[in-house]
Amino acid sequence: MATIEEKIINAGFALPQPPAAAGLYSPAIRSGNLVFTSGQLPLRDGQLVEPGGKGKVNDLRKDDAFHASRVALLNALAAIKSVTGTLDSIERIVKLTLYVSSETCFSSQHLVANGASSLLHEIFGERGAHARSAVGVAELPLDASLELELIVQFKPTIL
Amino acid sequence: MATIEEKIINAGFALPQPPAAAGLYSPAIRSGNLVFTSGQLPLRDGQLVEPGGKGKVNDLRKDDAFHASRVALLNALAAIKSVTGTLDSIERIVKLTLYVSSETCFSSQHLVANGASSLLHEIFGERGAHARSAVGVAELPLDASLELELIVQFKPTIL
Amino acid sequence: MATIEEKIINAGFALPQPPAAAGLYSPAIRSGNLVFTSGQLPLRDGQLVEPGGKGKVNDLRKDDAFHASRVALLNALAAIKSVTGTLDSIERIVKLTLYVSSETCFSSQHLVANGASSLLHEIFGERGAHARSAVGVAELPLDASLELELIVQFKPTIL
Repeated sequence: MATIEEKIINAGFALPQPPAAAGLYSPAIRSGNLVFTSGQLPLRDGQLVEPGGKGKVNDLRKDDAFHASRVALLNALAAIKSVTGTLDSIERIVKLTLYVSSETCFSSQHLVANGASSLLHEIFGERGAHARSAVGVAELPLDASLELELIVQFKPTIL
Repeated sequence: MATIEEKIINAGFALPQPPAAAGLYSPAIRSGNLVFTSGQLPLRDGQLVEPGGKGKVNDLRKDDAFHASRVALLNALAAIKSVTGTLDSIERIVKLTLYVSSETCFSSQHLVANGASSLLHEIFGERGAHARSAVGVAELPLDASLELELIVQFKPTIL
Repeated sequence: MATIEEKIINAGFALPQPPAAAGLYSPAIRSGNLVFTSGQLPLRDGQLVEPGGKGKVNDLRKDDAFHASRVALLNALAAIKSVTGTLDSIERIVKLTLYVSSETCFSSQHLVANGASSLLHEIFGERGAHARSAVGVAELPLDASLELELIVQFKPTIL
């Protein structure tokens, strides 16, 4: 059976290096069998991905932001792996929260979030079902287009 | 003793049908004895309720938004029931987060949230005490006026 | 060994009185060995602190907001103590979420959050490591500059 990292590759992506230790906070924290990630930006190699990773999202940019949500998701998964050592013991994705930096009158944050949600399903199958909130915020750190956080549940034997 | 659904009716409301399976995410997810809901909009029969369910909130619209927060709350409770089968085994409401689509200079998100909070108290009594965050966001999916999510704790024997 | 409240004093601060019972919601709620706080504003003695506690944040005001994030953090810790009786049994800070009321083009919410994050490290040492999200919102209750919430984990024997 394919590992989660193999499934990420099969989906056409790759798990990035975990986010650099930020000093003042951690990429992810484990509590019991839950792992809470920090808000992840659509960064690749330390840069906001182009197109779609930077600036406010509007209707013209929503497909680019859809892809950027997947970049942020992969960073969240890398953050989780950095504290648990593996993604294969994830029992379920519990909650995805997506903050989309939104231009006035842009009201399709849910379509942007579908980028991350559909990739979770592709990678995790049934375990990828998750609760989700998607909201449009005024501004984000580094002028990122979006910020994504996850809560995931691990199998008890692992933690 | 009245069931929670009877108490909802006694309060003058009714539990709606659970939100339709959204395909890419779930209305709510159970993890241990917690249930996390997705962000719920003030939808009734698939439409944003009028008045108060659509568009940015300002001081003139805050009473309508107060009522809309209760519609979103009932959707959240229906979402919970869809994964647990009952609301009667809720041990406590843990956290309510309310995102209010806010016009410039509107700073009474907490008064909007009181619609949902007071209904929680009416329905759940002491078990309805909850932590709460209410913030004003730039835009929401479908141009909704607000989005509400819950974390609730179930009695261990149920889950 | 110094207590957490002594460490707060050593850092040049003091734990405030817990937030007044808000009536419709609770300053914090315990669930298992987790405690979730309500969103805390930079209030001191019932007033938004000056400077930095009120109004939208921009680049000129970010140092003031940095300090305001610490005031909100201390309120969150007081909220936690109000339900647990002590801060000394905190096993880890799990998650900090900071909503910064942001003027257009302000994209340093993470620098504002460093005020709270660095104080957590100073007070809690290794236990103060935490996951974090910092986002820029449109408006906040009372026209506050920021709103901060915590999830913390207590040692199982206490709860």
